[in-house]
Amino acid sequence: MDIATIIGLLAGTALVLGSILLGGSILPFINIPSLMITVGGSVSALLINFSLARVLSVLSVLKNCFFVKLPDANDVIEQFTEYAKVARRDGLLALEKKLDEIDDQFLKRGLELVVGGSSREELASMIETEIVYIEHRHENGKKILDSMAAAAPAFGMIGTLIGLVQMLRTLDDPSQIGVGMATALLTTLYGAVIANLFCIPLAGKLEMRSQQEIMIRELMMSGLGSLVDGHAPPVVTERLCAFLSTSSRPESSVQAA
Amino acid sequence: MDIATIIGLLAGTALVLGSILLGGSILPFINIPSLMITVGGSVSALLINFSLARVLSVLSVLKNCFFVKLPDANDVIEQFTEYAKVARRDGLLALEKKLDEIDDQFLKRGLELVVGGSSREELASMIETEIVYIEHRHENGKKILDSMAAAAPAFGMIGTLIGLVQMLRTLDDPSQIGVGMATALLTTLYGAVIANLFCIPLAGKLEMRSQQEIMIRELMMSGLGSLVDGHAPPVVTERLCAFLSTSSRPESSVQAA
Amino acid sequence: MDIATIIGLLAGTALVLGSILLGGSILPFINIPSLMITVGGSVSALLINFSLARVLSVLSVLKNCFFVKLPDANDVIEQFTEYAKVARRDGLLALEKKLDEIDDQFLKRGLELVVGGSSREELASMIETEIVYIEHRHENGKKILDSMAAAAPAFGMIGTLIGLVQMLRTLDDPSQIGVGMATALLTTLYGAVIANLFCIPLAGKLEMRSQQEIMIRELMMSGLGSLVDGHAPPVVTERLCAFLSTSSRPESSVQAA
Amino acid sequence: MDIATIIGLLAGTALVLGSILLGGSILPFINIPSLMITVGGSVSALLINFSLARVLSVLSVLKNCFFVKLPDANDVIEQFTEYAKVARRDGLLALEKKLDEIDDQFLKRGLELVVGGSSREELASMIETEIVYIEHRHENGKKILDSMAAAAPAFGMIGTLIGLVQMLRTLDDPSQIGVGMATALLTTLYGAVIANLFCIPLAGKLEMRSQQEIMIRELMMSGLGSLVDGHAPPVVTERLCAFLSTSSRPESSVQAA
Amino acid sequence: MDIATIIGLLAGTALVLGSILLGGSILPFINIPSLMITVGGSVSALLINFSLARVLSVLSVLKNCFFVKLPDANDVIEQFTEYAKVARRDGLLALEKKLDEIDDQFLKRGLELVVGGSSREELASMIETEIVYIEHRHENGKKILDSMAAAAPAFGMIGTLIGLVQMLRTLDDPSQIGVGMATALLTTLYGAVIANLFCIPLAGKLEMRSQQEIMIRELMMSGLGSLVDGHAPPVVTERLCAFLSTSSRPESSVQAA
Repeated sequence: MDIATIIGLLAGTALVLGSILLGGSILPFINIPSLMITVGGSVSALLINFSLARVLSVLSVLKNCFFVKLPDANDVIEQFTEYAKVARRDGLLALEKKLDEIDDQFLKRGLELVVGGSSREELASMIETEIVYIEHRHENGKKILDSMAAAAPAFGMIGTLIGLVQMLRTLDDPSQIGVGMATALLTTLYGAVIANLFCIPLAGKLEMRSQQEIMIRELMMSGLGSLVDGHAPPVVTERLCAFLSTSSRPESSVQAA
Repeated sequence: MDIATIIGLLAGTALVLGSILLGGSILPFINIPSLMITVGGSVSALLINFSLARVLSVLSVLKNCFFVKLPDANDVIEQFTEYAKVARRDGLLALEKKLDEIDDQFLKRGLELVVGGSSREELASMIETEIVYIEHRHENGKKILDSMAAAAPAFGMIGTLIGLVQMLRTLDDPSQIGVGMATALLTTLYGAVIANLFCIPLAGKLEMRSQQEIMIRELMMSGLGSLVDGHAPPVVTERLCAFLSTSSRPESSVQAA
Repeated sequence: MDIATIIGLLAGTALVLGSILLGGSILPFINIPSLMITVGGSVSALLINFSLARVLSVLSVLKNCFFVKLPDANDVIEQFTEYAKVARRDGLLALEKKLDEIDDQFLKRGLELVVGGSSREELASMIETEIVYIEHRHENGKKILDSMAAAAPAFGMIGTLIGLVQMLRTLDDPSQIGVGMATALLTTLYGAVIANLFCIPLAGKLEMRSQQEIMIRELMMSGLGSLVDGHAPPVVTERLCAFLSTSSRPESSVQAA
Repeated sequence: MDIATIIGLLAGTALVLGSILLGGSILPFINIPSLMITVGGSVSALLINFSLARVLSVLSVLKNCFFVKLPDANDVIEQFTEYAKVARRDGLLALEKKLDEIDDQFLKRGLELVVGGSSREELASMIETEIVYIEHRHENGKKILDSMAAAAPAFGMIGTLIGLVQMLRTLDDPSQIGVGMATALLTTLYGAVIANLFCIPLAGKLEMRSQQEIMIRELMMSGLGSLVDGHAPPVVTERLCAFLSTSSRPESSVQAA
Repeated sequence: MDIATIIGLLAGTALVLGSILLGGSILPFINIPSLMITVGGSVSALLINFSLARVLSVLSVLKNCFFVKLPDANDVIEQFTEYAKVARRDGLLALEKKLDEIDDQFLKRGLELVVGGSSREELASMIETEIVYIEHRHENGKKILDSMAAAAPAFGMIGTLIGLVQMLRTLDDPSQIGVGMATALLTTLYGAVIANLFCIPLAGKLEMRSQQEIMIRELMMSGLGSLVDGHAPPVVTERLCAFLSTSSRPESSVQAA
């Protein structure tokens, strides 16, 4: 999934650059002051609205979203069927040896609670806190990207208006009209690219990632609950697949098609 | 219903092409780089937001929507009246012979459950899973088409801005101004056609199809329930027509008008 | 109420035409290809989204809305006071003679049920079905008009873009620039008039009509209920006026002002 | 509060006119046909959507809003403390003499009910009817102003498009281009002023007035209830102030600042 | 947090001014009549909609938002752990000595209630009133800033239309075309800067501040409740941290990162 995002970002950037290079040099499209007013102005608006820490946090949320891979739903189901077998044969405490093999922090903490003898209520309270955390983190990132997607074209327009006013005041030198207007339009172009190629799709991405992460966490929770209740391995598999069916089987079957 | 969609697509395309041909050649309206930035840019934005599998799934959802015909409500009612007669005369097991005649997978599975002696609760849980599946599939498609409908005009504008900047830098050759600006405007035209002739109406179509499919599934469910309860054939007919009346009689009577 | 709609349609059309004629001939404003792309394109988009039957149904809904007059609330109250007197004096069956005088199909069917001895529950189920029918019919019409109001300006813009591209390619004949651009702008003008003078206000009209029709139906239902319960004539009048007061007295008193 | 509205209307109009006069004569800005298409077209759209009576009712709602002063919350509290003293000393019937001093129709009717021995339930039903009436009246006015705020710029654009088409057809007389385009833009200017200086703020005003009127009515109702329950004067004052605190103390304290 | 807002305001203003100065003198960008129509017109629209007192109140809300620092959540937790120790050792009355050290009015009033022996119900009613007050105050400010953000670009456009009409009437002096159009565009520039650099981000800021203030108040309330219930100091710390975790730990941990 992360691959599609990276392909999209690269392809989109390549298409915009390619479309510029097809028509001539890229040099007239690079203008530091235009970039300053569009990006700088938008970031200033973000700083007024949010705190510095929150604006920066969007970077770590996005990094996390690209480089931390979510466990696959089918792998998780296999894993839990395996755990259920171990628990049946050797008791819950035997799962302690499995803890070292687990990379996912959430699953590790959950399994520790199960091995430590926590009740279903304690597990349920843990997942609720975790889901609130995930939603809060992604929603915060989405809000900042949405604000940026609205601010960038607005500051692009402000930059273009400033450029137009300056160009219109020097109409007496006709050879400069075109260059002046071209430069004025650059900020609008920057604003449109920032909003439509980066901010809007990445905000949508964060929303999707949030849904997927919550789904995986609920799947794990359901598996941990089955271990506590001491279900037989085939029951665990069936219950997790049933759980999968209502919220994600449609998508996974589409992916298989 | 699918015919109206195909007529609409053909007529709309013909009108746009006709309107171009009335004013001259179609050649100036075909520009591969313009198409690349508009379509390619929008698809890149979709890839960033959604996974590759989900973007591609929209094609299969649309294909399904065009080529898989929904059973007609009145045919379904007739069919169930017939089943009720058979069940009355020869018992539920006699319906097994009817299974081979059924094309619709959902109805077939439902009837198998009835013949196999499932309870109303098992049937109800089946329809819920199915409706979640239908809604999820169509909503996913609608979301992607809506994103495309928003992205296409945006990338059209980006293409036009790039073209304008390039054109404005070469104002010294006045004979090229018109051609440059015409080419710049092409991407905006492409974006507007993609959004308004294809994406927006098809997204609306998916929403309507979803409602109709759910209605037909609920009608079938009601009929299967009547078979389980062993209602007399006239009661089955009456109950299904009553069901039809509140959610769809208005439309069918309008169609009859 | 219908008169205001017809006056509005005529006055709006007259103002647009008058404003054209004040500035010169109307001929340059009539352009069949421009009309084709704007109206034809929008209708194509509607056909893709809705079925042919539903698109056509909007015409019958609008015709009904203009030419079928709703009974006046005060007349209905008088009528029911009269019925209550008859029922008190000669029994519910005596109302059978009144049936022939009633034009309104809904009221007639309701009174037949009352004369036939139906219970309040049967009456209540009838009104619910009727209100669902009214809402469904008007909402369907409103949805199509809303889609048309969004599609017409979009296809107007598509037509203008096509015209602009063609005009810009023939800049070498300056005498044709103005005419070309004027023709290009026509589709935008058509789209704006279709949306703002016809589709948007008519969609609002359908919503209002829906509310009024439901109010009248509920008033009738309340009166029929009073007949079944055998209320005295003054009680009937009072109950219906009280009913009126919360949802429509404000408006009727404003109309009286 | 009404004074701020009147100051706003006068100041806004003066600023627009002043800004015109600073740049030259006001004559080029007065154009009867432009006014006809913008105002006439918008009113036509309103007539199609609403009935004539409802469109006219907006005038009486606005007049009422400007010229009928709402009783001040603190005055009302003082008044009720006074009534409570009279009722304690001489009984509820002694309040009859106070009736002649009351201007506010709502309060008068309420006090008559209290003197006449109505129960709390009868009072509660009265306030509900009254609040529905107030909300309905203001909401109706707000809806019409909102429609006007959307229609005026749209018809302004229609007028501008008509003017542009006519101007573009006569490009051969360059001296008339500027005048033609200036006249064409007038309708857009009219539409923008009508929407932004009059309709949008007045619609917001109606909403605020509605909230304030309901708050005052609820305050009166609370006071009438205290009289029925025979609370001591200080208790009445305290209860009304407490009531005030949650919904309006913030604002009144800000006004005091 | 206030520092980010001030940095944002300064940086945004500096970027806009810098971008102007890079292209030449700032003088052509200062135009009193343009400022009058944009700012004056928007403020007039606000006055029509809101009362004078409410429009002015936005200034005090903003001032409060910049200069009154919210207590830090961790400090508050430390403080309450300290109070719990004192209360354990010397009884609730011993907290009276702490009252003088407290700057925060809300906490001071709350602690007085606790020392005075108020029940949990009295404390709960106090926080509810306070939260309604905070929400009302910030929402009022946000509403006015939102109205300003919508009105400023609209009056900017009105100013530009007036300028364009005047400029177009004097096309015969070509040397003035550029200057006239540049001046006309100034109001649009002013409107865009007012809306996007000031009103929209500040409105967002008020909403965030409102959320933070409510969170701190609820944290304090929870601490006061713990004092009333006589919890041990470690329990107080744990309960307040747990409270913190669901609604704000994500953010604070991000800030720590």
